[in-house]
Amino acid sequence: MDRELRISVIGSGSWGTALTKILTYNVSKVCWYVHNEVAIEHIKDTSRNLNYLSDVEFDTDRLILTNDINEAVAYGNCLVLVTPSAFLSSELSKLTVSLEDKTIFSAIKGIEPNSGLIVGEYLHKFYNVPYSNIGVIAGPCHAEEVALERLSYLTIACIDKQKAKIFAEAMTTYFVKTKVSDDVIGIEYAAVLKNIYAIAAGIAHGLGYGDNFQSVLMSNSIREMRRYIKRIHKIKRNINNSAYLGDLLVTGYSLFSRNRTFGSMIGKGYTVKSTMMEMNMVAEGYYAVKSAYKINNSHKKKSHTPILDAVYQILYENRRAKKVFAELVNHLD
Amino acid sequence: MDRELRISVIGSGSWGTALTKILTYNVSKVCWYVHNEVAIEHIKDTSRNLNYLSDVEFDTDRLILTNDINEAVAYGNCLVLVTPSAFLSSELSKLTVSLEDKTIFSAIKGIEPNSGLIVGEYLHKFYNVPYSNIGVIAGPCHAEEVALERLSYLTIACIDKQKAKIFAEAMTTYFVKTKVSDDVIGIEYAAVLKNIYAIAAGIAHGLGYGDNFQSVLMSNSIREMRRYIKRIHKIKRNINNSAYLGDLLVTGYSLFSRNRTFGSMIGKGYTVKSTMMEMNMVAEGYYAVKSAYKINNSHKKKSHTPILDAVYQILYENRRAKKVFAELVNHLD
Repeated sequence: MDRELRISVIGSGSWGTALTKILTYNVSKVCWYVHNEVAIEHIKDTSRNLNYLSDVEFDTDRLILTNDINEAVAYGNCLVLVTPSAFLSSELSKLTVSLEDKTIFSAIKGIEPNSGLIVGEYLHKFYNVPYSNIGVIAGPCHAEEVALERLSYLTIACIDKQKAKIFAEAMTTYFVKTKVSDDVIGIEYAAVLKNIYAIAAGIAHGLGYGDNFQSVLMSNSIREMRRYIKRIHKIKRNINNSAYLGDLLVTGYSLFSRNRTFGSMIGKGYTVKSTMMEMNMVAEGYYAVKSAYKINNSHKKKSHTPILDAVYQILYENRRAKKVFAELVNHLD
Repeated sequence: MDRELRISVIGSGSWGTALTKILTYNVSKVCWYVHNEVAIEHIKDTSRNLNYLSDVEFDTDRLILTNDINEAVAYGNCLVLVTPSAFLSSELSKLTVSLEDKTIFSAIKGIEPNSGLIVGEYLHKFYNVPYSNIGVIAGPCHAEEVALERLSYLTIACIDKQKAKIFAEAMTTYFVKTKVSDDVIGIEYAAVLKNIYAIAAGIAHGLGYGDNFQSVLMSNSIREMRRYIKRIHKIKRNINNSAYLGDLLVTGYSLFSRNRTFGSMIGKGYTVKSTMMEMNMVAEGYYAVKSAYKINNSHKKKSHTPILDAVYQILYENRRAKKVFAELVNHLD
């Protein structure tokens, strides 16, 4: 990464909007790839993103807006990827510009569904990005609270800690505190798994389990997450740090989490299909369950994951949530 | 403990009422010391405790009700202590019967305020109860959800694991699962500290911090709890087990927690005195803060406890919550 940070944000959902806003505090020009041309016009006219966090006002002098992903990638030496994981491959397939010499921070919380890989591995495998150029931006952070400028903490991870540090500085502002880490893989998996546990929390809620059970479920979830990540990438980490436990809690306890809402409808008896139609969207965690389950079962000695397994059975084996949870509760403590 | 378990419950608040109810499922006679004679008459007449969890119906054939603590202690070979910590010494001062040969499980979540000791240490020091006879009943468990028969998990701890196991069996029913542990001291301190962190969560809420911050605060709280307990009693324990992390979460995230409500009012600008008057009660955590702070500062090498220290300054050094938290946030990550 050059001394001069030229940042391009790829994605304009609520999290992309929040991250772009944060960056404009410190960076004089942020290039922002917004897929939708109408949205770009609206940002230019009103200084707001029509579709997401529309209360957030931008200093448009600080934005270079484009709906051409190649222009955005060509501009930046540091890219922030923040598309939904389901659209990552189709967006990147448009690229004519190489990613090999870019530093790329992923803020995507999910597994790339076609490959079953976490984003870092996907970029490395399909776009030859060296691991030392790959980083991740982790919460706990609801975009909605960034819009309200409520104090939030982010963890910026990269194997090359110097790169993490430089980018973290660009992300630090009066309502955002940052810390750095080198555990890219662990943090990416934590961000994937926490959505699965949020679905589980939602299912429990939908089935009528109470707060006592919810806390036991979260206590078991963080232990399961620790085992799962340790099997994949065994390094010394404190699973109770904000990027792991904090992120799990903000998602698992939030009534606004889409994954939790998704689970809650399943728990109330809706089918997966009708839940998706009702929500008019797909919760990231839905795909994550399948990939995470498959990855775990590909190990010779799979990690003990009763919660993941239960959610998998409900979503992909068409088993009744009530019955699956009646069994699950005997495997928690 | 004899093979035949003769249990006496000492205390009749909501938690005492809930525990007595649970015990009546498995134990044919439970002796219940209820301080207030009118309440006893009411239980006899209506099968319900007038003052607490009045929806819970008792099979009164299974109760031996008494307002004489000596009668209750004489009856039981296994005592469940569940008075408020502030009243423990005055209740026990009535005793003419010895406690030395009793197995005693404490369900008191607090430090005995006169001595500054956790209940186990208090019983050992002042009543010569050997540590092998002392146990603890830990959540995460709101009494209100026991009343609703919502699935809950309890941890029963005693150095003598056989005693824990026997008592755990008496506490297991179709909506209560139990596990056993030998970490009496760690679990007792966890139950004390979690009330302090619930006050901190309430203060943050009252000051207007959001969900992102709350999750960071809980993530820091569990790490602080781990350090604190490790300094006092260094054994191998998984701080993410239900009795520690689960109990912290059910208290810290509950809108019904008295400690959280207490903190919330402080955060909103009420004084300690007016909060107590408004709530018409004292939150256990208020005393716990002072004792836990004192205990920590009595160590040569005190443990790093920024959250405990912040709450102490607000409650006992009359510092403004807003200012203290503005400093605290720089010590979290």
